[in-house]
Amino acid sequence: MRAAVFLGERTVECEYRPDPHIVDPADAIVRVGLASVCGSDLWHYRGLTDYVPGSPIGHEFIGIVEQVGSDVATVAPGDFVISPWSYSDGTCPNCRAGMTTACVNGGFIPRDNHSGGQGELVRLPLADGTLVKVPGSMADYSTDILASLLTLSDVMGTGNHAAVSAEVQKGDTVAVVGDGAVGLCGVIAAKRLGAERIVALSRNPSRQRLAERFGATDVVAERGEDAVAAVKELTGGIGVDAALECVGTNQSMQTAIGICRAGAMVGNVGLPHGVEISAPEIFARNVGVHGGTAPVRVYLPELMGDVLTQRIDPGKVFDFRTDLDSIGVAYAAMDERRAIKSLVTVADLF
Amino acid sequence: MRAAVFLGERTVECEYRPDPHIVDPADAIVRVGLASVCGSDLWHYRGLTDYVPGSPIGHEFIGIVEQVGSDVATVAPGDFVISPWSYSDGTCPNCRAGMTTACVNGGFIPRDNHSGGQGELVRLPLADGTLVKVPGSMADYSTDILASLLTLSDVMGTGNHAAVSAEVQKGDTVAVVGDGAVGLCGVIAAKRLGAERIVALSRNPSRQRLAERFGATDVVAERGEDAVAAVKELTGGIGVDAALECVGTNQSMQTAIGICRAGAMVGNVGLPHGVEISAPEIFARNVGVHGGTAPVRVYLPELMGDVLTQRIDPGKVFDFRTDLDSIGVAYAAMDERRAIKSLVTVADLF
Repeated sequence: MRAAVFLGERTVECEYRPDPHIVDPADAIVRVGLASVCGSDLWHYRGLTDYVPGSPIGHEFIGIVEQVGSDVATVAPGDFVISPWSYSDGTCPNCRAGMTTACVNGGFIPRDNHSGGQGELVRLPLADGTLVKVPGSMADYSTDILASLLTLSDVMGTGNHAAVSAEVQKGDTVAVVGDGAVGLCGVIAAKRLGAERIVALSRNPSRQRLAERFGATDVVAERGEDAVAAVKELTGGIGVDAALECVGTNQSMQTAIGICRAGAMVGNVGLPHGVEISAPEIFARNVGVHGGTAPVRVYLPELMGDVLTQRIDPGKVFDFRTDLDSIGVAYAAMDERRAIKSLVTVADLF
Repeated sequence: MRAAVFLGERTVECEYRPDPHIVDPADAIVRVGLASVCGSDLWHYRGLTDYVPGSPIGHEFIGIVEQVGSDVATVAPGDFVISPWSYSDGTCPNCRAGMTTACVNGGFIPRDNHSGGQGELVRLPLADGTLVKVPGSMADYSTDILASLLTLSDVMGTGNHAAVSAEVQKGDTVAVVGDGAVGLCGVIAAKRLGAERIVALSRNPSRQRLAERFGATDVVAERGEDAVAAVKELTGGIGVDAALECVGTNQSMQTAIGICRAGAMVGNVGLPHGVEISAPEIFARNVGVHGGTAPVRVYLPELMGDVLTQRIDPGKVFDFRTDLDSIGVAYAAMDERRAIKSLVTVADLF
């Protein structure tokens, strides 16, 4: 099969790799239709992690079940499925507590299953707990709906996790720090949970417009302490009821903490890089910090319902499209900030 | 009037001070019946803060309204009242969000009102938003009930804030880090919120017994990494659904974070001293940290209901009793760890 392989800093290419096959009776093999590039893939692409050259890459994909192991009961060959970015049994204590990313039997794609989402075939362990079946076939859906379904594999679920972790309530004033694809999906999630006012922190005009399209009522272009002052001014000096931290830098975390009203929660989904949380500062104002690797599997059914009924259209975050042979340009477009997020057609299954 | 005064390291004495009087029409003057010594008073007593010698001290008290300003509508002279440890208007955006300790017009006793709770008379600003009237008169209640009502001024409300911040739910397994008066009240709060299993971390036999009397189902005497291992073992390797951090040291915070299951919340009410929160560590396991200065005024009515119906008896935390003239020994008993918490009879109003 053809699959994206990380070859070294700023080099991801489509190569031929052995087809994956069923290893465990709980496995499924999925033939990928659409895949996408995640902001976290870029960390590897940029050589900022210890990602091993020669490894498969990618963890966001939708496709058709090709084959299932003898224990798999909930999906069958031919089913149209969405895969969350991690696999999980759905039955362990952590899964039952809604933390599928901490499943005691689970793992991450492609680190633990050794096949990447940006490839023609993926072996999914724990298929029953992991894959979510979409009604009908891929051919039944428009490319817009398919793009939105693809975001449920990670980015929309991660934006939702930011909003859920920040405990957004109906009527809240919410701020979203970060205008990447996750932050933009965080705007959708905040609106979906009933936020009345949504402040998007962005200095990029096209992302500002998309944030407004998704439900942002205010845009703040300032950064750092100026951003805190601007959001405070928008909220009568009080701060927001919930802040979504969707970047992972120390500045974005300090901004998220700083713009919270007393008692509010920061929902943190930006992987922390050099972040320092001051215990006395958050204590003094009763600001909480909660979040982490997003258990998108938990949110997938309800978000899928909202996509299929067109209540939400997170697929709009894709502003660059290419195919698997050109996977390198999908990365480059995001790396060079020409694209918010790249959609990769792997096979025409629709 | 007579009142406790901080004179320097390990010296708190009863002295004569001018009677406070109404300064603002929203003020009330309260004649104190019972007061108590808080763990946070000990920080000053031990000379670990910049508390100014000659200052009044104390912020936990119950008593009778002596006089009210012309704007005060909800309490009147003769009323039996509980005062929370901070005053607040109850109407500002932070108060409406449940954060009375961040009231935009509020303040802390005695720092901002200049009269301390360990004294015969206290001037309370914002009396309508602050004081909570107890039905009947002090003479109607047993000394046990009065002691429990006194804890609502701070320590029981603070223990409750730990449990609320940790988001304790019915059926949860909860751990309480800290066996001081706040931690012991945290056990009561966790049980009150429906925790099914409560693990008290304590190595002191009498405190272990009191924790069990309050609802602890398990006791762990280990500290640090051994405590984490012990709690993990008690919970099938998973960790607890909620952890109450009631100490404020770095070790207790690391223990609280370490014993959490993926996705769980640490409710932090121990004033942080040297605490470091590792953003990558809490992110990796989706552990949250939330808490701070406790808005006990918010919890006071419901906790008072539970005290008056004898559903809870937090007054049991008092294991040392003296009077205002002997205030120094009330401090010394706690400082030397001979007492969990000291109750001080200021005037026999009951």
